[in-house]
Formats: sequence, C-alpha cells, structure tokens
Amino acid sequence: MLKKIDHLGIAVKSLEEMIPFYEKVMGMKCVGTEEVESQKVKTAFFEIGDTHIELLEPTSEDSAVAKFMAKNGEGIHHIAYYSEDIEADLAKAKAEGCRLIHETPIPGAHGKKVAFLHPKSTHGVLTEFCTCGEEH
Amino acid sequence: MLKKIDHLGIAVKSLEEMIPFYEKVMGMKCVGTEEVESQKVKTAFFEIGDTHIELLEPTSEDSAVAKFMAKNGEGIHHIAYYSEDIEADLAKAKAEGCRLIHETPIPGAHGKKVAFLHPKSTHGVLTEFCTCGEEH
Repeated sequence: MLKKIDHLGIAVKSLEEMIPFYEKVMGMKCVGTEEVESQKVKTAFFEIGDTHIELLEPTSEDSAVAKFMAKNGEGIHHIAYYSEDIEADLAKAKAEGCRLIHETPIPGAHGKKVAFLHPKSTHGVLTEFCTCGEEH
Repeated sequence: MLKKIDHLGIAVKSLEEMIPFYEKVMGMKCVGTEEVESQKVKTAFFEIGDTHIELLEPTSEDSAVAKFMAKNGEGIHHIAYYSEDIEADLAKAKAEGCRLIHETPIPGAHGKKVAFLHPKSTHGVLTEFCTCGEEH
C-alpha cells in the first residue's frame, strides 16, 4: 500500500547553486545532504508538508540522472511513493503489467530500500517505491 | 509561505485510460474530475498523503499541456505548492529573479487561484503556486 509521496526527485547540475535557490525563492530549509553511491548522485533534501523535494546532482557521467539531463536538461526526474510493503507493491505493479527496473529493492538515501518502475510502463513517469525502518 | 505540495500535475493523453491505471497499479482512488477552461484541460485528482496527483488531459491542441506532450510525451508536467499568501509568495519569487507566467493569479481547479513560474527561471521545473478559500 502506497501511503504518501516520500519525495520528488529533481535533476540539477549543481547542488551548490540550487540549495540557495530553494531556500530563498521557495522558503524551504535544506534538512540534509547525502551521497548515494548506488545511484551515483549527491542529494539535498527539503521538507515540505509530509513530503520532500530531493535535488539530485550526478557524481558520474554514467549516472542515470546525468543521462536524463543530457536528454531533457534539468527538471523533475521522478516521483517516489512511500510503501509500507515494498515487495507486495512491486509484485502488484508487475502483475498489472508494469516493467520493473529493480525486481528487488536496492539501497537508497537515508538507509531506505528503493525500487524503480520503468517510465515506459508508467506513461512517462519514472516512479520509485521506497520503504525503510525509520521515516526521515 | 509555501505550506505543502498541493498536487503534482501529470500530462496524459487519456484520462479514461489513466484513471484505472492509477487505481489498479498505485492503489489510489480518483476523488474527482473537473474541466479547467482557463488551462484547456480535463483533470482527475487522486489523494495520496497530504497531497494529490492531478492527471491532465488537454481539451485543445493549443493547450499548454498539449504543447508539452508534443515536445516531451506524457509525463510529469508541474509541481504545485500550496501558498497561504499567493501574492506575497509571487512577489518574493519575482524579487529573487524568477520570471512569472502569471503576475496575478488566474482561476484553477476546485475554485483555486493559481499562478505559474516560468521553468526557464526555475531550472526546468514548471512551478505553480496555488491558494483557495477552502482546501480540497
């Protein structure tokens, strides 16, 4: 069962440039930064309501986020839904015909387990399911 | 002050096709549909946590959403933040150098007042501020 939007991932060229933008223009506070090796990105998180904005700066040219920006430029990259039972939600999506990028969850930011659905089977929306022991 | 993400706008070709997709794959319930003449779209809303997914199907080829899909295909179209004082938040964004698509709010779905920031000044993210008398 998907409980809420955990975060929105936004691809950016430079966290150093964009953290002040979100703080000044949007009035949000950066609550942390983290490097996620499995996805070759540095991230910065901002709290807003019960969800987060997650800025993503690639650390390598072969990062999926770098490839996204090469094609699309900076912009919204994915929607991440918080799941209480990620294996069950992945199985349900697969049973409904979704193509999974990750059949089983991989490590994400904040010690979460994450898995992506392929945007070709979700009408262009790169979709992440995530879950963890403790919510951030 | 931006309080939460009010909704995420997702451009789709057909509400008729996508409403069952979100209900079956994501397990969300469609809580309403509405035609928004000012933006030449039909919308369908789904509740998730304290925010919403808003599917957008263009009703005209000169709708901004139709033009977006002609260029990008189906996918995430915009982020809408709920503002308690939309005029003040627009003025702040403008003072910080943002280009506003709407200098003053226009009518949106659910009787809301909405205004968009140009994605060229928000690093590729089409951003909406919205506010209303009553939250939906």
